[in-house]
Amino acid sequence: MNIMKYETVALDENDPALLILDQTKLPNDPEIIRLTDIHDIHRAIQTLQVRGAPAIGIAAAFGLYITAMKIRDEDSGTFLARLKDARDYLNSARPTAVNLSWALNRVYHVAEINAGKSIPEIIEAMRREAIAIKSEDTDTCRRIGEYGLTLIHDGDGILTHCNAGQLATSKYGTALAPIHLGREKGMNFHVYCDETRPLLQGARLSAFELVADGVDTTLICDNMASQVMKEGRVNAVFVGCDRLAANGDACNKIGTSGVAILAKYYGIPFYVFCPASTIDMTIKTGAEIVIEQREPEEITEMWYSKRMAPEDVKVYNPAFDVTGHELISGIVTEFGIARPPYSESIKEILRPGRLL
Amino acid sequence: MNIMKYETVALDENDPALLILDQTKLPNDPEIIRLTDIHDIHRAIQTLQVRGAPAIGIAAAFGLYITAMKIRDEDSGTFLARLKDARDYLNSARPTAVNLSWALNRVYHVAEINAGKSIPEIIEAMRREAIAIKSEDTDTCRRIGEYGLTLIHDGDGILTHCNAGQLATSKYGTALAPIHLGREKGMNFHVYCDETRPLLQGARLSAFELVADGVDTTLICDNMASQVMKEGRVNAVFVGCDRLAANGDACNKIGTSGVAILAKYYGIPFYVFCPASTIDMTIKTGAEIVIEQREPEEITEMWYSKRMAPEDVKVYNPAFDVTGHELISGIVTEFGIARPPYSESIKEILRPGRLL
Repeated sequence: MNIMKYETVALDENDPALLILDQTKLPNDPEIIRLTDIHDIHRAIQTLQVRGAPAIGIAAAFGLYITAMKIRDEDSGTFLARLKDARDYLNSARPTAVNLSWALNRVYHVAEINAGKSIPEIIEAMRREAIAIKSEDTDTCRRIGEYGLTLIHDGDGILTHCNAGQLATSKYGTALAPIHLGREKGMNFHVYCDETRPLLQGARLSAFELVADGVDTTLICDNMASQVMKEGRVNAVFVGCDRLAANGDACNKIGTSGVAILAKYYGIPFYVFCPASTIDMTIKTGAEIVIEQREPEEITEMWYSKRMAPEDVKVYNPAFDVTGHELISGIVTEFGIARPPYSESIKEILRPGRLL
Repeated sequence: MNIMKYETVALDENDPALLILDQTKLPNDPEIIRLTDIHDIHRAIQTLQVRGAPAIGIAAAFGLYITAMKIRDEDSGTFLARLKDARDYLNSARPTAVNLSWALNRVYHVAEINAGKSIPEIIEAMRREAIAIKSEDTDTCRRIGEYGLTLIHDGDGILTHCNAGQLATSKYGTALAPIHLGREKGMNFHVYCDETRPLLQGARLSAFELVADGVDTTLICDNMASQVMKEGRVNAVFVGCDRLAANGDACNKIGTSGVAILAKYYGIPFYVFCPASTIDMTIKTGAEIVIEQREPEEITEMWYSKRMAPEDVKVYNPAFDVTGHELISGIVTEFGIARPPYSESIKEILRPGRLL
């Protein structure tokens, strides 16, 4: 199996179409789907055929470019108006995903500032912008991976939770970037994937992309992390992050804080991986982050299975938790690794001019 | 729903039969099965229709008595020989379950020491012994529950892992005994059940028996325990134990040690519940306990569902882990609560004459 066969999101430039590895079919039936209709692209984002903030942004950027090609015969004013409608429609697919609106606005903005040019020229500028979004993401992930590789040695055991991998980005991923990049350099690591209940992103996605890349991958249930650490199998924990507060508190998939506490107990370094754009300086601490509560059925009914809990039981299903900065050994970004105290080091990572 | 409707194991004395709540059908289709044939009883133990060490012992004791009634027409020598065969056959259903052989030997021994009497008299002595085994177990669990109730207050939040409940014993359970006993006394607790991957004993069994008893029960995934503790919802953690070493190290369902580390981190007391018979003084520390490794399919294929991990992934599936005694706030037995240092307090619990 070749991981390149399973690029997360791609643009077919010869016969313009958005190509997506359908993540709802993983791990059993990997399938590349080819989309050209805006409604299909909207649905793909909405139904998680493509997921992961950077991957969603890239898919939407390509999607807006492909849509633009279909309205190229209109006059300039109509073209921009219809393009704006298309942008807003695609943006409604996942209203809370910041990367989605960021990427769509970036491609739309290019059309706006080129409004005086011919429509083919505008569309060509949009194409370049969409491709740039993807290539910048790959570059960011590669740099995160390079920094991450300085933290481990060939053959180390790495434990990860959820999927902060290639399947969430254009390539490499964030927490899994050092693993994939290490493979390119001929290294190998023993990766322990928490299955990550309730939606099993670890079992379905991380294990899939790591196995596809030839990584020595072992799947465990979330509650086995303590035993695996105790047995000395884990040299470091690498996790992603959905939102990082100014003090270093990291909001990530439910269960991350528990893994961090176990790592501290066993004396194992715990690293959070994220692009600098994930750092939200308007949030002072993790206490300000409201945790999304999800549907009980995610717990009571397993992944296309029959019910497995009594009818009258209550269910508590938080989607994320916050890992206190005091549990985090380092925060790995494309600009380097922030170390405690984070209130200082994060400012350094974000010093003026670094982020566009 | 009435919990008494769902007694784990019972003897129908009017029309002698073993009654079992079929645990393989839980939580969806609770069903009492009625067994009189030794092969059916053997199969019920082997296929986990009845599980939990004390419950297995009781079922086997009743099963041997029922089998004895069917061979009552033989002469005394043939009767005992066939009874011995029946004992050995039932004992082979789960070779490693200590309670199974213990209970069978106890009932068989009664037949042996009454060998000079009439066969109806022998069978009557066996009936009394089997009933005594069950009622002693209920008594032990009730006493464990009484001690456990001294550790909590009405309305407290209790987190539990796996099933150390009524479904594993004759009544009350061990870790869940204070909860059920509290219900009898008009109290209620908020119980958080870890679902307990891979086999979901928390979701399928603990949640079932607690809901059936009218307990305010909330199901969570194992990896949510950290968040639930952080939110201040948990006043104490109650877990069972499969084997307790002389120094207090507790071997229990995989994930227990992780819960203990989280509890220590958040300053929440962590209690282990077990009958004194679970304490193995021949084992100095938990390091001597070999952890059973189970089949990968328990993790890669969910509870009657389709595969949910890639084909080539390795799986690590330890069934138990050892919780270090330094993480345990107290060990609750029918003879009282052992507190650190356990090397002293456990000896006191087991002082001569206390155990038969």
